[in-house]
Parts: sequence; C-alpha cells; structure tokens
Amino acid sequence: MAKQPLVAKGKVKLKDYSPDFTDGMKREECEAKLPALQKRLAELQEIQYAQGKTATLMVIQAMDAAGKDSLAKKVFEECNPQGVIVHGFKAPSEQELAHDFLWRVHAKVPARGYMGVFVRSHYEDVLVVRVNKLVPKQVWKGRFAHINAFEKLLHDSGTRIMKFYLHISKDEQKQQLQERLDDPTKHWKFHVGDLAVRERWDDYMKAFEDVFNECSTDYAPWHIVPGNYRWYRNYIVTKTMVDMLESLDLKYPPAEEGLDQVVIPD
Amino acid sequence: MAKQPLVAKGKVKLKDYSPDFTDGMKREECEAKLPALQKRLAELQEIQYAQGKTATLMVIQAMDAAGKDSLAKKVFEECNPQGVIVHGFKAPSEQELAHDFLWRVHAKVPARGYMGVFVRSHYEDVLVVRVNKLVPKQVWKGRFAHINAFEKLLHDSGTRIMKFYLHISKDEQKQQLQERLDDPTKHWKFHVGDLAVRERWDDYMKAFEDVFNECSTDYAPWHIVPGNYRWYRNYIVTKTMVDMLESLDLKYPPAEEGLDQVVIPD
Repeated sequence: MAKQPLVAKGKVKLKDYSPDFTDGMKREECEAKLPALQKRLAELQEIQYAQGKTATLMVIQAMDAAGKDSLAKKVFEECNPQGVIVHGFKAPSEQELAHDFLWRVHAKVPARGYMGVFVRSHYEDVLVVRVNKLVPKQVWKGRFAHINAFEKLLHDSGTRIMKFYLHISKDEQKQQLQERLDDPTKHWKFHVGDLAVRERWDDYMKAFEDVFNECSTDYAPWHIVPGNYRWYRNYIVTKTMVDMLESLDLKYPPAEEGLDQVVIPD
Repeated sequence: MAKQPLVAKGKVKLKDYSPDFTDGMKREECEAKLPALQKRLAELQEIQYAQGKTATLMVIQAMDAAGKDSLAKKVFEECNPQGVIVHGFKAPSEQELAHDFLWRVHAKVPARGYMGVFVRSHYEDVLVVRVNKLVPKQVWKGRFAHINAFEKLLHDSGTRIMKFYLHISKDEQKQQLQERLDDPTKHWKFHVGDLAVRERWDDYMKAFEDVFNECSTDYAPWHIVPGNYRWYRNYIVTKTMVDMLESLDLKYPPAEEGLDQVVIPD
C-alpha cells in the first residue's frame, strides 16, 4: 500500500486515492489509540473555550451513507456538548434561497471559544447545485473565489478551519445503502431519490476534485480521508484535529486578580 | 431516609428536600444502570428525529458549581450531537435587553425532531434578576404568567418540556468552589463575584421556591433533583427523560412508497 497524502495539494485525481488506505495500521491499533485522542481533544476544547480567543470549524462532506453523522459524533464524543455545535445543512429554504449562498452559513459559524461542525456546508453549492445544473456554470465557478474569501475572513478572525472529505468507494456506498434497506429502523434514512445521486457518481467525483483544486488553502485545507474503514477514519480525523489544536498554543487565561487571597465563607 | 418527590407539586419548601437523597440506591447500582439508559435515550432521540413530529426541551437551573454542564454532557452522551442542541444562556447582550425577556429564548427552542438543552434559561429572569433587584417586583412577578403561557405555546406545538433544578447544599457548593480554587486548570471558572451570589443563598432558595410554586405545570413540570451525589443525579435525570419519551408513542415514520422494490445498481 503506497503512502497517500491526507491534505489535498496540487492537482487531485480521486482515482489516485484509495478509500481502503489505512497507512499500514490495524483495526485494534486505531481503536486502542482513539480514546486518548478523544480525551485530549476534549481538554483542548475546554482550553479553547476558557481562553475564548480562537474558534474551530470542521466541515464534513461526502457522498450519501459515507458516515458523516457518525464521524461528527465519534470525534467529539468526550467534549462538552455546550461548546461543540454540530449543524447539518439541508436543502435551503425559500428564505435562504432569497439570500446569497453564504448567508445561512455565516449565521452558523462558531463564536470565539466554540467548535462548530458543519455536516454538509456551503460546498453543496458547488457540488449538488453544479451536478444538477441548478445555476449556470459561470455562477458556480464564481463561487470558489467567494468561498476562499469567506474562509479567509473567518481565519483572519481567529477561526481555524479544517475540511474533511470522506472518501468511500462506490461499492462501499452500495453496501451501506443496502444495510439501510435491510434494517426497518433505517428505512427513514433511505430516499429513493438518493439512487439518482448515486447514478451521477462520476460527475460528483469530478465536482469534488474541482473543490479540492480550487478551495484547499493553507488557511482552510481539505483533507481526503480514506473512508471505507471507519475505525481508521475516526482515528485519523481525531488525530488531525488534535494536532491542529496542539499547534495553536492554547492556554487557560490568567486567573482573576486576587484569586490567591480568596477564602470561601461557610 | 424518607421518600422524597421528584416533581415539584403544591407548596414547595426546599428545606424539606434533602440534597443527599438517593432513594436508597447505591453508587454502584446507579452507575451500572446508567449506560443502558443513555443508549435507550439515544435510540428514542433518533426515533423522535426520524418522526419529526415532536421536540424535547430540557431546562437546567441551579446554583453555581452544582454541575449543570456535566449533567448536560452525561445525559446525552450517547446521542447524535446533530440532534441535541445544548445552549448556555449568559448575561444578556444589549441587543437582547432591548427585547422582551423571552425573545432570545424563543430563538433557541428546538425545532420538531430535535432535543434542546438550556443550561440556564428564561428562569434567570425571575432568579438573579429578582435577587439583584434589576427590575421592580411587579415586573418579575408578572413574568411567571408570561413563562407559563410561553411554555404552553411550545407544548401545544409538540415540544415536551422537562425542567430540572439541581438541588445541592451550601456545603457542597463550598467544596466544589474550593476544588476550582485548588486546581489551576479550573481557575478560569472561578469569578470572585460568584461569592456575592453565594452570600445571597437564602434569597435564591426563596426565589427558586416561588419558581416551583408558580411554574411547575402539568405540561412543563419542575423536577427537584437531589444533587449532592452526582451518580444519583445522572441516573435519575436520564431515567426521567427516558420515561417521558417512552410515554410519547414515538415511531419511525413509514418507509417511502416502493422501498420494498428497490434494487441498488452497481
């Protein structure tokens, strides 16, 4: 198994990225390492919250049934839920469509001290919107620059942006969709219309490649996460988040003046 | 140890409620039963989300350092974070103060299918606001009726409201505050001003009693949760939430028409 970069750089061809890549790691190893990473992430989240100077924004995109929700749950499992706000973007409402495409997204970005997780995001406006030709080509093409400028604004205001594409194979999607069909408690997640999206698989891969080529920046990098093995995916994404936060020099704020003199009365 | 009601009914005197009450249960027993309750809550949350007909709103109030945050984390630990939105209300902003006191709260109530958790809430407007005399008596007295009408509106629209007061003793608060003083990683949580609140302990108890007497309704009951033993508190609150949701007759929605005919193409 050849080495495979995590961060999208240069011209990306998704066929060069194996969804089965695990960097030579075994399931037991990844599962054994995950809890300490989750705990460390929770510590760093608390310090970021206490310090209140920076924010974290995680963006998750993927084809249907790739496990976007379960990733969001797993990575932040140990964190204080008050400090981690997970928002799933659905098809836009009439009111949302009456604004520019970043309006509803801007409203949901995390405040300083908080972690925001977007399950789907403004990238849908250059993915499903493009593939289904909901706007002319010149419009969606223009959006790449808008997105980069918007993410730069957030970055310059102290928000660290990490974007993750969960890369699964078409076979893996079939298996996941079949599980939804076979389990009555998962029928509500199955929409016959999803099969039309699956039919356009190659168009979506092309659209994702353009996203990586246009919008993977130093200040808001795209990560191409091998997604067929969820235990590797959970491990590598949690580790990537921890590594990023460790690099921020987060610190608890100084104690209030006079705290060392305090005696708590009965 | 005498039996002690959980739901506030009739004239409440907090001195009749022991913060040490555990209903004869031992720590091991509560801790052993908690994981299954957390998992069941997660299942019920998923069904409520899938069905999309009802919502859940949990309100947590307590004196400082009673463990409001840790309760919110513990109860929903197994739930999908995208479906559980925890919101902490802080001192109101200038913009918020320029509106009626329920304006900022209404904006944060859960949509159908979601669970909302308020850490502090509109009840601060009849607690701290009252004790600190931030508005005249006739204003805060009038708020009880406004609160009941607001909660009735939510209830009639399908939101099940459960309110929890974490009842700790003044000694227990001292111990928790002392821990914050002794641990440098908790200094950021300690505000010298909190001691002034502690000094008004009896005034707060009186204000809480009025809250229970005025605003514990059939459609939005207040629960007085013994809070000195966190293992009992976590157990009984999680169980209470599960029992409430079990009573709702939640069901997965019917599968889409024709789902039994679906064959997923390669």
